[in-house]
Amino acid sequence: MNVEIINVGDELLLGQTVDTNSAWMGLLLAHHGYAVTRKVVVSDEPQALRDALTESLQRVRIVLITGGLGPTRDDRTKEVLSDYFAAPLAMHAPTLEAVQGYFERRGLPFLEVNRLQAMLPTGPGTAILPNPRGTAQGMWFERDGAVVVSMPGVPHEMKGLMEEEVVPRLNAQFERPVRYHRTLLCYGKGESYLSEMLGEWEIGLDARGVALAYLPSFGQVRLRLSATGEGARALVDGCVTEAAELLAPYVASTEHETAAAGVEAAAAGRWLAAAESFTGGAIAAALTAIPGASQWFAGSVTAYTERAKRELLGVPADVLAEHTAVSAPVALAMARGVRERLGADWAVATTGYAGPGDSPEVGTAFIAVTGPGGRERVEEFKWGRAREVNIQRGVTAALHLIWAEMRAEEEVCQKKVV
Amino acid sequence: MNVEIINVGDELLLGQTVDTNSAWMGLLLAHHGYAVTRKVVVSDEPQALRDALTESLQRVRIVLITGGLGPTRDDRTKEVLSDYFAAPLAMHAPTLEAVQGYFERRGLPFLEVNRLQAMLPTGPGTAILPNPRGTAQGMWFERDGAVVVSMPGVPHEMKGLMEEEVVPRLNAQFERPVRYHRTLLCYGKGESYLSEMLGEWEIGLDARGVALAYLPSFGQVRLRLSATGEGARALVDGCVTEAAELLAPYVASTEHETAAAGVEAAAAGRWLAAAESFTGGAIAAALTAIPGASQWFAGSVTAYTERAKRELLGVPADVLAEHTAVSAPVALAMARGVRERLGADWAVATTGYAGPGDSPEVGTAFIAVTGPGGRERVEEFKWGRAREVNIQRGVTAALHLIWAEMRAEEEVCQKKVV
Repeated sequence: MNVEIINVGDELLLGQTVDTNSAWMGLLLAHHGYAVTRKVVVSDEPQALRDALTESLQRVRIVLITGGLGPTRDDRTKEVLSDYFAAPLAMHAPTLEAVQGYFERRGLPFLEVNRLQAMLPTGPGTAILPNPRGTAQGMWFERDGAVVVSMPGVPHEMKGLMEEEVVPRLNAQFERPVRYHRTLLCYGKGESYLSEMLGEWEIGLDARGVALAYLPSFGQVRLRLSATGEGARALVDGCVTEAAELLAPYVASTEHETAAAGVEAAAAGRWLAAAESFTGGAIAAALTAIPGASQWFAGSVTAYTERAKRELLGVPADVLAEHTAVSAPVALAMARGVRERLGADWAVATTGYAGPGDSPEVGTAFIAVTGPGGRERVEEFKWGRAREVNIQRGVTAALHLIWAEMRAEEEVCQKKVV
Repeated sequence: MNVEIINVGDELLLGQTVDTNSAWMGLLLAHHGYAVTRKVVVSDEPQALRDALTESLQRVRIVLITGGLGPTRDDRTKEVLSDYFAAPLAMHAPTLEAVQGYFERRGLPFLEVNRLQAMLPTGPGTAILPNPRGTAQGMWFERDGAVVVSMPGVPHEMKGLMEEEVVPRLNAQFERPVRYHRTLLCYGKGESYLSEMLGEWEIGLDARGVALAYLPSFGQVRLRLSATGEGARALVDGCVTEAAELLAPYVASTEHETAAAGVEAAAAGRWLAAAESFTGGAIAAALTAIPGASQWFAGSVTAYTERAKRELLGVPADVLAEHTAVSAPVALAMARGVRERLGADWAVATTGYAGPGDSPEVGTAFIAVTGPGGRERVEEFKWGRAREVNIQRGVTAALHLIWAEMRAEEEVCQKKVV
């Protein structure tokens, strides 16, 4: 069952807001057997939404709209849809009560513009989807077998509506052919090299009805395999196993889509710590974004200055003087220091020149991992000159490195037990 | 001059990749006087790109395409465009040489699929835009006064092509009416409250030819004012001054679009540090993303455990025991600790329950700032239950808090000098 998404908002076209909503919606919809076949971003201008909606309804029977439902004058989605579907606005008593309660609980004044949020479309084929997280409600329009849904663009409000209202209603109404995807997470080689390793096997996938896509990002490549229909799951699972054999040395996981998720799984019962120089807190932020990280992530130090490396991590002054801050011995000393001070089982440390700039050092980085039983590893990297890219590459490399070491230690332990 | 953007890639529709490219493109294009009027995301299926391109060319004279130029079999944009514009593919010698050099410098094997990257469209109205950052080149097609450009989807490759090739060529070819934007950054009140404060003034903007949009995110609201034509700059500047007076207590800046940029500007000649609990490194990551942060950001500690708070920040055990880790005294002790240990001028600290979960503490947070001359401030916050939202709100609140304190101190110092 195909779906199109329309995002409304000048701020998305102007680039003042990055659209994270539609990626989240795409994942959720794919999980439930819907395929997003097109996404369109239009301006706040009413005619732009009308045009895009008319075009989408010529192609698909489900259209999801986000944005343009705020209380201010630049938000006009509700008026456009009320008019488009001939669903006149009227005061919706349950919403008025809910919105008043929302303001009361927060001790905020209830303004006229907030009251107007309860003026909502009415009539046959029209339903209001309650949004307990904000003041703009979801709206559901059913016309000639097609469904158009409007939601606020605020991410957590949209997510709540999708999970609690929109997807259950769609599932009750539409039959979906099964579309099944799985991802193979690779690290250490680029997409063209991996494709060469797959060789004839990849070319044969078409005939088997399996699609393969390469999703490279910052030194790692995800391979997504997908198929449609009754036997899709068995078919894709079989292909994942085959691909994992062909690419064995570079396969990080057939289960986890990100290195952070892999680290979380490997961390069960262990404490992790990080010491960051050029990655500047981004490793810690990636790990602590995971709910429950406080059960296995002890903490981290971002040591941007030599003083910070000495004071907070105990890196010896002579090691800094002899090798400079960007060196393998300093990376290792940082990892050891944070592991010891936080009483962690595992630690990872980064030091490098993120850039930007023309100096020859830019792009040089060292990443060290230290773990139980004296297990230690340091790697040197040479990347490009773009700061943002180097930071992201550093995070990816650090997570893959500590994850690989944790897996390797796990295997050794299992062998010992056997 | 209107522009449409087409992004190609199943991974964008499936949600496996968040599209940050088009926001960046939107900002750059707006800066040069182009208006992005629509963005469309289509699948890797060749017909989807053909359809979207035909539709866009009915509306605008500039279409920018990203994605689908990789070396693997799922990437088909080049073939589609070669066919669409009747521009046959041929070996492009300068590209072949450049791509071979790219692999040699990195010590990587040069494969047949990489050689094929140098097979590029040819013919009148067709130009190759060199991409020194990767192996997929930019392609420029000019037909009947319209321009279609294809670029790789890898962010830093696309950005290099846009800045060095695409925008200069577009500027040489198209006259643009001046469109001028400015942003007012507000903090401390929601959009409906701010709109109420603007009152009649906002309603009068239409007649003056000025558009106002509200861009709320995590507790802050940016107001974007824009106008078109000769006097746009003076008109918008005047309106920004008027709005800043009406909203005075909640205006953080009329210059800086983000709190991080404001902190950077205020930090000149000072050293900053951070101690993070529930924000987990995200404050450090936001600050160190700024080029040159090593000149004013000393470092930070992510202290997820009580041990980390004691060991790395010197938070006294009795303060932790008496007040618990999520309390005003602990936030203040964390800020003082990191400021002292890193010899910083200013420090900000966060402690709180990010969630998720049903426990009543979730959403409670304390943020403390400490600075020169004994200047200290602690604030308590009560947010919702969504972990990701609470972390983002914490980062935003912490940056606004330290920024406001730095501005206040700066004002005191200026008064003393006068």
